[in-house]
Amino acid sequence: MTGWVAIVGLGPGNEDLVTPDVRATLAEATDVVGYIPYVARIAPRDGLTLHASDNRVEIDRSRHALEMAANGQRVVVVSSGDPGVFAMAAAVLEAVEFGDPAWRDLDIRVMPGITAMLACAAAVGAPLGHDFCAINLSDNLKPWALIEKRLRLAAEADFAMAFYNPRSKSRPEGFEKALEILKEVCQPDQPIIFGRAVSTPEQSINIVPIKDATPDMADMRTMVLMGSSTTRIIQRDGAPLIYTPRSVVP
Amino acid sequence: MTGWVAIVGLGPGNEDLVTPDVRATLAEATDVVGYIPYVARIAPRDGLTLHASDNRVEIDRSRHALEMAANGQRVVVVSSGDPGVFAMAAAVLEAVEFGDPAWRDLDIRVMPGITAMLACAAAVGAPLGHDFCAINLSDNLKPWALIEKRLRLAAEADFAMAFYNPRSKSRPEGFEKALEILKEVCQPDQPIIFGRAVSTPEQSINIVPIKDATPDMADMRTMVLMGSSTTRIIQRDGAPLIYTPRSVVP
Repeated sequence: MTGWVAIVGLGPGNEDLVTPDVRATLAEATDVVGYIPYVARIAPRDGLTLHASDNRVEIDRSRHALEMAANGQRVVVVSSGDPGVFAMAAAVLEAVEFGDPAWRDLDIRVMPGITAMLACAAAVGAPLGHDFCAINLSDNLKPWALIEKRLRLAAEADFAMAFYNPRSKSRPEGFEKALEILKEVCQPDQPIIFGRAVSTPEQSINIVPIKDATPDMADMRTMVLMGSSTTRIIQRDGAPLIYTPRSVVP
Repeated sequence: MTGWVAIVGLGPGNEDLVTPDVRATLAEATDVVGYIPYVARIAPRDGLTLHASDNRVEIDRSRHALEMAANGQRVVVVSSGDPGVFAMAAAVLEAVEFGDPAWRDLDIRVMPGITAMLACAAAVGAPLGHDFCAINLSDNLKPWALIEKRLRLAAEADFAMAFYNPRSKSRPEGFEKALEILKEVCQPDQPIIFGRAVSTPEQSINIVPIKDATPDMADMRTMVLMGSSTTRIIQRDGAPLIYTPRSVVP
């Protein structure tokens, strides 16, 4: 038996957003590895072993997946969203680079998924319809000064912005500081979108001008999108539609 | 019959990357509207009318879709990739904002898809595994000076970068200028990835240091990804793996 590792994205939560490509790969797996709530989305079956682990053990989990594949197993590493966006693909490749040289010869595939920022954007319209950036607001893996620098440069570039991991239980002050910077560098009425548990039955969306945004509007299940200076709000009965136009008229 | 408009993403080309959500919506449609090569991906069937139109008529196409929905038809507007990323969702919402006020009451949904940058990233590893930005390099709809400003600020922020529409037949000089700027502001060995027709049988990938990049490496079917200063290349037999680590050590 020839082993392999596929690092796949399960999308934001709705099972109808998992690609057929990922479904077919899961059907061939002998082992599924990942963070507890993502592995919980995989239906158990004969011949499939589920290996759920806690958060912040990404490198251990990656090594385990690679060891099993080297042993001939067919291993799927699951992420929510897209595995290449602040998720497991970079962790597995880091484990490859600094691990057993034989792991480089393994069949390693990354399979895309619907990432949270695009699911959240779709839920409100098209706020990322023009140039944008994606920033992980967690300062577990980078210094806060770099996050602040990127926020300021992104605002100067007038990008729409997508913020992953806005607010952890252990370090809630980071998001408070991020909002302060955004209030300083953006126009007061630029919309900010808080999309929680998007695409699931618990989905809730909150859209406010940045001047009225407060840190408690986000938790770790929230995707935050910040409009650019050109982002538009279409008011109507029911939820408004938000979009960033394709054109910028000089 | 109650009409609606769904603006959907067909993903980068491989039919196994179309979400079940989008498939189910296409199965309910009476009309499909879009750019010729994307409409060509939809199988004809009884009760479905296909309306294919040329590029650069996005607003006319959007109005047509909204008129049909107001008339009770079930209309799917197709984009490749994700409809919210340099695609039809922003065009339809622009048509709503400036069109018949009754269009605001329509059932308008945006349904996400696998966008080209994430398919291209997955094909080579995880080059967008840390903070990144997405820039449309076409200057049809914005001044070149703004593109140049964003490139310089994105490099200063040390974002990985994804470039959509790098090189049009009518204005090939834009991409030449973009490469000149990147050569000036990035380290000479930072990798740049040219992914053409990713996920289709014609897929081809070319990875070079930015110092060796030339404009002819891209055409309009090419997605271009620029690594950040921390992006790594794992050499091995066969195609290398590229990733941008999750951590930045100060």
